[in-house]
Amino acid sequence: MNLAEMREAVHPADVGQAMAGLMAELYPICRSITGDGVRQTLKRIQQEVSIEIREVPSGTKVFDWAVPREWNIRDAYIKNTHGERIVDFNNSNLHVVSYSVPFHGTIGFQELKEHIFTLPEHPDWIPYRTSYYKEDWGFCMAHRQFIDLKEDEKYEVCIDATLAPGSLTYGELCLPGETTDEILVSCHVCHPSLCNDNLSGIALATFLARSIREMPRRYTYRFLFIPGTIGSITWLARNRENVGRIKHGLVVACAGDPGKLTYKKSRQVNAEIDRTVQHVLKHSASEYEVLDFVPYGYDERQYGSPGFNLPVGSLTRTPHGRYPEYHTSADNLEFVRPEYLVDSLEKYQLVFDVLESNRRYRNLNPYCEPQLGKRGLYGPVGGQVDRHSREMALLWVLNLSDGEQSLLDIAECANLEFRHIQQAAKALLECGLLEECQG
Amino acid sequence: MNLAEMREAVHPADVGQAMAGLMAELYPICRSITGDGVRQTLKRIQQEVSIEIREVPSGTKVFDWAVPREWNIRDAYIKNTHGERIVDFNNSNLHVVSYSVPFHGTIGFQELKEHIFTLPEHPDWIPYRTSYYKEDWGFCMAHRQFIDLKEDEKYEVCIDATLAPGSLTYGELCLPGETTDEILVSCHVCHPSLCNDNLSGIALATFLARSIREMPRRYTYRFLFIPGTIGSITWLARNRENVGRIKHGLVVACAGDPGKLTYKKSRQVNAEIDRTVQHVLKHSASEYEVLDFVPYGYDERQYGSPGFNLPVGSLTRTPHGRYPEYHTSADNLEFVRPEYLVDSLEKYQLVFDVLESNRRYRNLNPYCEPQLGKRGLYGPVGGQVDRHSREMALLWVLNLSDGEQSLLDIAECANLEFRHIQQAAKALLECGLLEECQG
Amino acid sequence: MNLAEMREAVHPADVGQAMAGLMAELYPICRSITGDGVRQTLKRIQQEVSIEIREVPSGTKVFDWAVPREWNIRDAYIKNTHGERIVDFNNSNLHVVSYSVPFHGTIGFQELKEHIFTLPEHPDWIPYRTSYYKEDWGFCMAHRQFIDLKEDEKYEVCIDATLAPGSLTYGELCLPGETTDEILVSCHVCHPSLCNDNLSGIALATFLARSIREMPRRYTYRFLFIPGTIGSITWLARNRENVGRIKHGLVVACAGDPGKLTYKKSRQVNAEIDRTVQHVLKHSASEYEVLDFVPYGYDERQYGSPGFNLPVGSLTRTPHGRYPEYHTSADNLEFVRPEYLVDSLEKYQLVFDVLESNRRYRNLNPYCEPQLGKRGLYGPVGGQVDRHSREMALLWVLNLSDGEQSLLDIAECANLEFRHIQQAAKALLECGLLEECQG
Repeated sequence: MNLAEMREAVHPADVGQAMAGLMAELYPICRSITGDGVRQTLKRIQQEVSIEIREVPSGTKVFDWAVPREWNIRDAYIKNTHGERIVDFNNSNLHVVSYSVPFHGTIGFQELKEHIFTLPEHPDWIPYRTSYYKEDWGFCMAHRQFIDLKEDEKYEVCIDATLAPGSLTYGELCLPGETTDEILVSCHVCHPSLCNDNLSGIALATFLARSIREMPRRYTYRFLFIPGTIGSITWLARNRENVGRIKHGLVVACAGDPGKLTYKKSRQVNAEIDRTVQHVLKHSASEYEVLDFVPYGYDERQYGSPGFNLPVGSLTRTPHGRYPEYHTSADNLEFVRPEYLVDSLEKYQLVFDVLESNRRYRNLNPYCEPQLGKRGLYGPVGGQVDRHSREMALLWVLNLSDGEQSLLDIAECANLEFRHIQQAAKALLECGLLEECQG
Repeated sequence: MNLAEMREAVHPADVGQAMAGLMAELYPICRSITGDGVRQTLKRIQQEVSIEIREVPSGTKVFDWAVPREWNIRDAYIKNTHGERIVDFNNSNLHVVSYSVPFHGTIGFQELKEHIFTLPEHPDWIPYRTSYYKEDWGFCMAHRQFIDLKEDEKYEVCIDATLAPGSLTYGELCLPGETTDEILVSCHVCHPSLCNDNLSGIALATFLARSIREMPRRYTYRFLFIPGTIGSITWLARNRENVGRIKHGLVVACAGDPGKLTYKKSRQVNAEIDRTVQHVLKHSASEYEVLDFVPYGYDERQYGSPGFNLPVGSLTRTPHGRYPEYHTSADNLEFVRPEYLVDSLEKYQLVFDVLESNRRYRNLNPYCEPQLGKRGLYGPVGGQVDRHSREMALLWVLNLSDGEQSLLDIAECANLEFRHIQQAAKALLECGLLEECQG
Repeated sequence: MNLAEMREAVHPADVGQAMAGLMAELYPICRSITGDGVRQTLKRIQQEVSIEIREVPSGTKVFDWAVPREWNIRDAYIKNTHGERIVDFNNSNLHVVSYSVPFHGTIGFQELKEHIFTLPEHPDWIPYRTSYYKEDWGFCMAHRQFIDLKEDEKYEVCIDATLAPGSLTYGELCLPGETTDEILVSCHVCHPSLCNDNLSGIALATFLARSIREMPRRYTYRFLFIPGTIGSITWLARNRENVGRIKHGLVVACAGDPGKLTYKKSRQVNAEIDRTVQHVLKHSASEYEVLDFVPYGYDERQYGSPGFNLPVGSLTRTPHGRYPEYHTSADNLEFVRPEYLVDSLEKYQLVFDVLESNRRYRNLNPYCEPQLGKRGLYGPVGGQVDRHSREMALLWVLNLSDGEQSLLDIAECANLEFRHIQQAAKALLECGLLEECQG
């Protein structure tokens, strides 16, 4: 069963519901770049696919960085003078600035407001803030609630958190293929109750791994569920000797919003992964956008640092920072829809279909066209490809299979969908008109 | 007398009438990929230019193909029960599917209609059909006549044809030049009473050969009058050792319709022939279109198969399949006009003018500009070129003649018509400011 | 004090007035390609910057040319029968065709009019004409005045000029830098009372030299004040062995009209000077135009002759021949405005800022991003660059500093202004995250 057949065997709506279901279960957990929230998340993923959970001790040197102390939080609140919790961590884990140091005390409004973040332009939304590398504490709250605070009131503030030696936790899954050449799929797991960024990416990577697990594959697939930045830096530091195996990669994020699919190119700009994703998007029926590589964004920044320069792009829907709900409480379970998750998943599958089948062949009958009719290659074969495209695909594969150009090169030159070219190559190979080129 | 002078000596309208006259004589002949119709056609062309007529026996192996049996037809008809010929080969040779096997019998409408082809969207036109490589018989007729056939009537059907060992016939003309480097002009001669496709191409190639025969020439010119596909495959198989001599080539077809000139690039995409034709079309006063190479069309498919990869494009007016009259009885003597034939011919001549004169020179005074005034190179010389273009052409040729760039390169860079650049090079050469580079 | 600091220390309006003042002083002088007018002009420039004045004897062979005889003029007029000067050289030195041979006599209108040039389409303007290499004499006058001349009248004509062995005069200034690599700034000084072409270029080059003289510099700067064509040919002939030192160059002309800035590329098309000027213009707030190199125009024709092929472009406002006042008496002190002169000067300074700072660096921490926060590189630093651009500039410099790409390459890739990239490189260099690459 290959990926295409797999997909037909599973009803897309079921997959969408399953992805949404996983997200709903993970939504309440308070994740950060370290801590129990990440562990709990990875254990839930293990119920779907057998990822391994790695622990890297605080203080471990990883290139220019060190693994930070582990952060865990039990409770946090702001109480008014009546002892009422006006801000309560139990209502939303976004209320606490991630990596806030422990604090307990009663302070005036003037001092308190230095530690409060709101979004005046979206007065009902709670922003998401972090302070990983600067020791501080803070609360995030709806602006509409903030303006009701009284200037002359005292507030009891409590952040019952720990920031102490422990470890950084990440998940890794390796699905071996015929070769040790690898395809990397990386998603960040450090965001708390935010859905598109990045429970959608976690759900997509999980269900993508489930489908790839079932199919025969040329490539080895490696899935990483890691905290952003420090996670990829840690993984790269621990796997520095083996990164040369990574031939193609994608960073998964923002995969469930209603926006159009968006591909951010790898630093190599025109790597096979870059051309493959663009081919798939061009031949999809939907609008899409392609962005140049910039050294800003998710973990493609680290995979694409000059010392590694790995061919890792990022396929998302609306990219980070381009939708108003980004990094706010409005990036919730309603913002992300099952049908968009499935659409994103299918595009990833189509990309890997192309990578799996993209090989180079040599036309064994290069002087003039071979007589296709006597081999039964003309006329209707199968229903899915129309006759003209089928015949053109045969002629293009014969004309360009010089041992140098790949099927993707040919598909682009012919302006035909890859699967037509692939089917033509298969038919010609079976007739003995082509041979596969190694290496 | 060079081509340009030649052209001035002959009135274009006379040439157009002569081309149209040749087409009218060839129109009634029933041609196919083999047989007496081709022989008769080539003999008529021999009255214009001394082509050699080659015969290649049926069964001769040519790469992946074999020369087919020879097909000849004497008569064919469908008679109704009154003995009236309701379809008569003598009225139009398009009525019989080319390469129909012999048949004689009386059959019912249901059986007959399986062998009949019509064009419901053009009810008065007879389509053109072939069945070269599948043994079958058939008739083509106007749809308006077909719908009058009676479901319960019996019809006497006769195809008095032979399909038997014989030979494939083609014509070849070699006009030797100063060098053995060749320019190939190829046209297909296998279509029966169809004018644009390809009596127009036959007429153009014939009269082009007549004009080139009279002029001094650097290149050797080879003209092929061949049946489509099997003809070029046969020629390539018999001349495999010498195809390296072909430096430039054009496939001539559809040269007389009112549409704009259209150039289909060679497989090499940016060969000298590709750049030359585009240059000529760009500097013509008329609209034109340039198409990428695709491995579909006329014999450029074979010349451009990967084992040969010859720089052979195709310069036509409206390409095959893009005009409604294509491959129907409406592609007749009225569809093709003498003025379009002459316009096409003149573009071919301009292309060959450029190829003949496109050389590389070296500026012998490369440090600063030479003083043109003291050599009389400034000011009005001849009437045809305006002074500014003439001076700019002199400066461009001096600036770019580094021994690497050709006059065509310079013309493109300067955005000036080739003949201005050519005249400038001639003037500078005469002053001793340039030397020609060999090789 | 670098250029940028310099510029802030001087009020632009003052510089504009000073440039306009210099032009006003030079305006009345009758310059030509040789003669006392050029000497007088260069002596005035010496009061601003210490150029050296070179004299090259008439008859000196310079490549394909020879230095012409020296031309000087004392007086010239056309008198009517009443003895009134109806055309008087003292009113405008444009009245006499430059290099007119001496003449004195009384002639009829029919003979006179063969020697008179006017502009019927601008009846109040006097055209500017020369006859350097053909011995002749002539007058230029307003068309409105010309039509009042009487067909039957005799006119006394006098051109009190000398054309005799002497020398060609030009000015040269070399401002040595840390290296012997040179930047060339060349302007022509051969035009009489014409302001935009080219007193504006003379003023710009003079004040540019004054500002560069004050700043520390990596490059050696060479300023040439030369007669057009024969001047650059003479200079190149005398300095042939050293032209390889010229790494970048600009020809200055037409620098004070209200039109948009226009850059004409060097013959190398994509040299560092070409990319630099385009970068500066792209990031200026104003409209601009970029023209391809053509072997016509000012002295870039000679610097860009194929034997030299120097990377010398031309940065002007409206180019020669594209404004109606060009080469007429309307190109006067009112046509050129101080604010446009200053704007042009500033663009030249920005171009040289980029060239001075455009180096290549190597990221010493190429595996993953370094931790910028711990080095204090995040957050607000200085007021002039916004925070996002500053951070993006840091990330881009780190990502692309592979020892091959220059800061200009990075700025173009990042689509950020060069100074942001330069400031980021400086900050990273100070932190030890970069090292400079030599050569």
